[in-house]
Amino acid sequence: MKNKHITKQSFSQETIKRLSLYLRNLKRLRERQIYVISSDKITSFLDATPEQFRKDLSYFGEFGKRGVGYNVERLIKEIENILGVNREWKIIIVGAGSLGSALLGFVGFSKFNIKITHAFDNDKRKVGKVRNGVKIYNITKIKSIIKDNDIKLAIISTPLEAAQNIADILVKSGIKGILNFAPVVLKVNKSVSVSNVDMTSELESLIFFAKG
Amino acid sequence: MKNKHITKQSFSQETIKRLSLYLRNLKRLRERQIYVISSDKITSFLDATPEQFRKDLSYFGEFGKRGVGYNVERLIKEIENILGVNREWKIIIVGAGSLGSALLGFVGFSKFNIKITHAFDNDKRKVGKVRNGVKIYNITKIKSIIKDNDIKLAIISTPLEAAQNIADILVKSGIKGILNFAPVVLKVNKSVSVSNVDMTSELESLIFFAKG
Repeated sequence: MKNKHITKQSFSQETIKRLSLYLRNLKRLRERQIYVISSDKITSFLDATPEQFRKDLSYFGEFGKRGVGYNVERLIKEIENILGVNREWKIIIVGAGSLGSALLGFVGFSKFNIKITHAFDNDKRKVGKVRNGVKIYNITKIKSIIKDNDIKLAIISTPLEAAQNIADILVKSGIKGILNFAPVVLKVNKSVSVSNVDMTSELESLIFFAKG
Repeated sequence: MKNKHITKQSFSQETIKRLSLYLRNLKRLRERQIYVISSDKITSFLDATPEQFRKDLSYFGEFGKRGVGYNVERLIKEIENILGVNREWKIIIVGAGSLGSALLGFVGFSKFNIKITHAFDNDKRKVGKVRNGVKIYNITKIKSIIKDNDIKLAIISTPLEAAQNIADILVKSGIKGILNFAPVVLKVNKSVSVSNVDMTSELESLIFFAKG
């Protein structure tokens, strides 16, 4: 980072999510063989202005030339480096029910360098099975597998009641980032980052606004 | 609604999502055969206080008795009625790629009275196939199918480039609520509600905060 007094915790999740969106737009531009770009092209399609883009990047260094624009390839590499997505990340899925199974079948993760390495469940009928190339382990093995494989990321797709207990185990085992699909606010210490995706409440709020 | 001057558009999505969460907790209580409950039990597990709960409900009427608490069954019925989830809703999926296919395989929708009735794609190899009981139609049929079946809800799981064009078609065809998985800010008129789920930027932000 440009300023050594800035730590990762200084950034909001919103800033970092915007970097992720800029990165995706830059990759689209690269696919179209566009090599140099202005900041307003990078923010097109996004809910961000060129000014916001320049401000977000300024925390990390100087990447563009005034009046010339940004080198697409270099900026992709820089943002990948900032985000940490320039290497493969292992992720585990806890809860192999209907949602967990759907996620195991979602091949999109590999596109952005994330590999689902293990799944876990407490249902003995599921343990030992392989779904889309991922083996389902007994939940009792979770601590040792996380530690032995140096895994930092986890998806929680358990029922509501189990989620906090699972989160506690994950944090104790060294997990640093949790994507939570259970409809509960997880309590974790500040060194762990949680993103919540609650499809039910998203859908129920759409129904409320959609009904006649 | 209690006050006739309040329209649906007066409510924030956040308020409505909280109603959805209260409803889920109430259903859990019912499963445990709990018939009367205080507001602090309803908000346990949630990022909401009993005061918030009472305030959210007060827009819609008086449902509890001071010192007695809430009748669980009655409150479930009332919130289901407020949200509009007391009847079945049809939803279509546009884009039957890896994410769309995973969603077709997600049986969880049926739990909350939402039925995926049709899927759409522009890939002729997919058109005509049936996945998890849902037929994939040519995207060119979308307008007539939405109108003929009086469908109000849609999921967009297309690539980024196609999403805005699809949203325009959906809105013109009468769709009122869109769950958008494409990483783009959709421009729709105010009578249409959009919820965004962007798993890539959620995961990339987790990686940023998780890296050593």
